Amino acid sequence: MTRRPAVGGPGALALPALLLALLLAAGPAAARGRTVEVWIAAVPVGWNVVPNGRNAIEGDRFEAAQTTFQTVVYRQYTEGWAKLVPNAPGDRGIQGPLIRARVGDTILVHFRNLDTVFNRPHSMHFHGVHYRFGSDGSYIPGFSGPGAVVKPGQSFTYRLVAGPDSAGVWPYHDHSPSMTDSIAGGLYGALSILGPRQRAPDREFVVFLESQLGFMTIDGRAFVGNTPVFHAKVGDLVQWDVLALGDEQHTFHVHGHRWRTPGGGVVDTQTVGPAESFAIRWREDVPGTWLYHCHVESHMMNGMIGIYRVAR
Amino acid sequence: MTRRPAVGGPGALALPALLLALLLAAGPAAARGRTVEVWIAAVPVGWNVVPNGRNAIEGDRFEAAQTTFQTVVYRQYTEGWAKLVPNAPGDRGIQGPLIRARVGDTILVHFRNLDTVFNRPHSMHFHGVHYRFGSDGSYIPGFSGPGAVVKPGQSFTYRLVAGPDSAGVWPYHDHSPSMTDSIAGGLYGALSILGPRQRAPDREFVVFLESQLGFMTIDGRAFVGNTPVFHAKVGDLVQWDVLALGDEQHTFHVHGHRWRTPGGGVVDTQTVGPAESFAIRWREDVPGTWLYHCHVESHMMNGMIGIYRVAR
Amino acid sequence: MTRRPAVGGPGALALPALLLALLLAAGPAAARGRTVEVWIAAVPVGWNVVPNGRNAIEGDRFEAAQTTFQTVVYRQYTEGWAKLVPNAPGDRGIQGPLIRARVGDTILVHFRNLDTVFNRPHSMHFHGVHYRFGSDGSYIPGFSGPGAVVKPGQSFTYRLVAGPDSAGVWPYHDHSPSMTDSIAGGLYGALSILGPRQRAPDREFVVFLESQLGFMTIDGRAFVGNTPVFHAKVGDLVQWDVLALGDEQHTFHVHGHRWRTPGGGVVDTQTVGPAESFAIRWREDVPGTWLYHCHVESHMMNGMIGIYRVAR
Repeated sequence: MTRRPAVGGPGALALPALLLALLLAAGPAAARGRTVEVWIAAVPVGWNVVPNGRNAIEGDRFEAAQTTFQTVVYRQYTEGWAKLVPNAPGDRGIQGPLIRARVGDTILVHFRNLDTVFNRPHSMHFHGVHYRFGSDGSYIPGFSGPGAVVKPGQSFTYRLVAGPDSAGVWPYHDHSPSMTDSIAGGLYGALSILGPRQRAPDREFVVFLESQLGFMTIDGRAFVGNTPVFHAKVGDLVQWDVLALGDEQHTFHVHGHRWRTPGGGVVDTQTVGPAESFAIRWREDVPGTWLYHCHVESHMMNGMIGIYRVAR
Repeated sequence: MTRRPAVGGPGALALPALLLALLLAAGPAAARGRTVEVWIAAVPVGWNVVPNGRNAIEGDRFEAAQTTFQTVVYRQYTEGWAKLVPNAPGDRGIQGPLIRARVGDTILVHFRNLDTVFNRPHSMHFHGVHYRFGSDGSYIPGFSGPGAVVKPGQSFTYRLVAGPDSAGVWPYHDHSPSMTDSIAGGLYGALSILGPRQRAPDREFVVFLESQLGFMTIDGRAFVGNTPVFHAKVGDLVQWDVLALGDEQHTFHVHGHRWRTPGGGVVDTQTVGPAESFAIRWREDVPGTWLYHCHVESHMMNGMIGIYRVAR
Repeated sequence: MTRRPAVGGPGALALPALLLALLLAAGPAAARGRTVEVWIAAVPVGWNVVPNGRNAIEGDRFEAAQTTFQTVVYRQYTEGWAKLVPNAPGDRGIQGPLIRARVGDTILVHFRNLDTVFNRPHSMHFHGVHYRFGSDGSYIPGFSGPGAVVKPGQSFTYRLVAGPDSAGVWPYHDHSPSMTDSIAGGLYGALSILGPRQRAPDREFVVFLESQLGFMTIDGRAFVGNTPVFHAKVGDLVQWDVLALGDEQHTFHVHGHRWRTPGGGVVDTQTVGPAESFAIRWREDVPGTWLYHCHVESHMMNGMIGIYRVAR
């Protein structure tokens, strides 16, 4: 991502609706925050949901042919889609790049459809951020514009603003006429937006709950040994970005830990349904090799489980 | 609805449990608030879930015979069930009338069963409000009274009180022995109760998530072009009344907008399961033609999606 | 349970993470709170989901052979597993004993596997409380210790601490390699932890939502007449401990009552998914014979419904 310095303006904490409207109208020059630019393409990949071919806990084995499929995913590129950007640590799943911004920032997402396998239109629809109707990215017969049906070979730039109410973690995904197949195929990702003065975490873990090929997946992988192994050490400020898409409700659980919800309750298991998302934070204080998983039993048994290792 | 002026009493903000008890015991004369009276009957109708015969986004077509059924719904009448009241704007779905009240009000719901098609008993059971056991409207062998099994041709009056903890949006529905069939057939509606000094919204949209004939429905309709088109303009205070019944969990999403939950978190997608309900409010500031839908993909693809138009 | 008096230390309200760490390291002697000790075994039982053989509301009848199965459940014993402890009132379901503690307490759970029917390993995994990795009780190939796979005839002691963020109600359950079968069979229970100065309720009702033999169950029973009848009187401080396990989302509803969620919203129906849990409290003020049930209609119709009687 390219980050350009702020141009001026009042304090971000008091960014009111009127300023936000001006900002959406006038573009980045009026923004107090930075302008974050990112180039993303929809690209074909072959994806193996169970690369090691096994369910380590229950002992089942699978052939690669049962667990691999051709699909289209979002991948990050350098400016002008010049070169594919290798995925960052903590961002290695089937999902697209984690787009990071801060309240007050303008986010320009330059999207190109490189789907040469299915030759379908695609788009990007973003949750949680502010934008004008033209950047909605959703197909509505008779109303939607070019950002909703980006054909293979074409490009579109979505202009988004992280408002005061955008702090947190949000999904983005295809909302073109091919969205049913493409979301099931992994055409989604996450935005992570810090509050005006919020400290960035030491570790940030993206947990995308979906299903592929009949397996229940985390970041497109199933079963311990394939799903992400997240690492932290005692004293780290860790953040879990938990999101879901598809048809199912999940209950996200981490062993040996608890967290506070916005209302002030404490939970260690939290419901997340399709397109819901939340960020969980804690200062790590318990070394061990912990499980994190969806607590819906059939989901857990069918792959939606991983390991979180905390070193002293 | 008939609204009668308040008779006196202390400020509604401090309505304590004892006063509430007195009020339930003594009836409307003791109430500080108004008495709201409404006449409702269960009446047979033919209902078409997909009146225009098509799924505009995916292009499928349906015959009227596939999408129409005979059912029984709640409909509002003038005093003494003299005359059917045409549905109000924003209240045109399969559900019964939106019963509006304010904290402190006593609500008298006069119910008559006019189900001459199936000849089944029916009742009304109300969420969110206070009432004595006799107004519960739920069939319990050996315990329930006449309000739980209102036979065809019979009437019953439910006496309800909007307590200090009743502000918000709540479902009502049949809870007689025939409730399984009748709720699936649309025998439900909503209560909308304002806080003691809460401003009424400029626009109020009722979104009832259920299923009929295998379609996933909003207010008894499926697919863009059949589901309600809600209208507002920039500057309006809009309120969405979101409710669900049946067997499914839904995640309600509105494009281009976010809202604050009671705990202070911000979401743009929110889980609503059977008999859950919530009111969402915002001051409208984004013109456009927006989608609102359940984000469970199979629900959205099977009809649970509509359009919200915001004019400048 | 054996309760030993506190040994000293600072006020429980300010129990910080460091103290908690010391407390976990040093054991009960360093704790400000008491030490609660409880002896629990996994024992074989025959269990009838519908002892009276009928669905009183809809009139269906069942043979005992259809509704009875052999399973393994948690049961409480006196010190050293000397003698089975009869279940306490309000704690008579398929679930194990309600383990009661207060923030600041250390809880020692002495577990013995007496599963002589299936001869499977079992364990105990606790939600909501603090513990070191060795007390996690969850099977992870290559990492977990003896507390995760307790074989028939063996014992293990789990050392838990009720931290300042542990107040509330939490499930415990088998997390050994046999957990899929054993949780479905009823091998679970609840912890109820009071805040540092929180008043104990006059009545405490445990509502465990699961399924057995295809019935939707509360505390292992289906249909009014089999599910628990909870009793209170006007003026009582009542507490409902609502928990779920398995594959399903539920919406818990009590007729004629409402409650406040941690965020300050008021509801009378609340989603609870697998391993989620919450405590609801109110001062009882409405006499009557009320229904409590899951509002997912197919769950309610398939047994997940009971009666709550409030005397004057």
